[in-house]
Amino acid sequence: MSDAPYFAPAADTRETEEGDRLRPKFDASGLVTAVAVAASDGEVLMVAHMNAEALALTIETGEAHYYSRSRGKLWKKGESSGHTQRVIELRVDCDQDAVVMRVEMAGTGAACHTGHRSCFFRSVPLGARPTPELALTVNDAGKLFDPQAVYGTPAPSDTPRF
Amino acid sequence: MSDAPYFAPAADTRETEEGDRLRPKFDASGLVTAVAVAASDGEVLMVAHMNAEALALTIETGEAHYYSRSRGKLWKKGESSGHTQRVIELRVDCDQDAVVMRVEMAGTGAACHTGHRSCFFRSVPLGARPTPELALTVNDAGKLFDPQAVYGTPAPSDTPRF
Repeated sequence: MSDAPYFAPAADTRETEEGDRLRPKFDASGLVTAVAVAASDGEVLMVAHMNAEALALTIETGEAHYYSRSRGKLWKKGESSGHTQRVIELRVDCDQDAVVMRVEMAGTGAACHTGHRSCFFRSVPLGARPTPELALTVNDAGKLFDPQAVYGTPAPSDTPRF
Repeated sequence: MSDAPYFAPAADTRETEEGDRLRPKFDASGLVTAVAVAASDGEVLMVAHMNAEALALTIETGEAHYYSRSRGKLWKKGESSGHTQRVIELRVDCDQDAVVMRVEMAGTGAACHTGHRSCFFRSVPLGARPTPELALTVNDAGKLFDPQAVYGTPAPSDTPRF
């Protein structure tokens, strides 16, 4: 395997924002933000992070890879659950510290480890100053799979699930 | 103005992920990730960050507020450009460290300070190991406004533009 670098830093802000080269701006932890949306209808499925290797593998293989901050390691989405993500399109933002992927989900179509299609399955009411009692409402039709059946049971609530 | 807290920490992961209360999990810098998508067609417009005050103001006013890491301060989206964002719906993800907003853009409808509708106006080619020469392709029809006319000219390329 080649040791050649995947990416190079941008010379300046103008090259980052207006240039035609990929110049990812990794943060102090070496990460960019990654947003996955459903290719079918554009729904935002999840927000996670990628290090340089995860971004490079995603580009090369067309399968979404992320970097787990909690586990401190690279992971291929779906490696334990089967809920892989085939990347149809990958976009980078103006300052190149975030990417958006249009993905086709495998398996049940659920991207969230809780069993919901999207991680964003709860809505926040608007129009009043928030307090700690602010109640969320579930905005989908429920879980598409049983997390305990997929990830094993019993699982400590702080176990990362991929 | 009340000094009562906007938010409270979650008791545990289960409350964060399965509970019906807003328990934002701010990172070490006090921020959550915020994704704005167009209410009209679901296109991802931008990815930015919110501190507790920005999130609270967004909830209370229904107008998107963010926290600028480069300027180290709260900003209301569109405060200098007129490109404000009216929040139609606000969702929070499973681990409550990211929110997605469906927004109606004011003005030209462009969310990006470069003049493009979306900050994600460049696509990354897939299918080969990336190298520093990997070329991006522009995926939209061009700029909706002239940044120099809106933000002033000449502007140093590293001047944050809101």
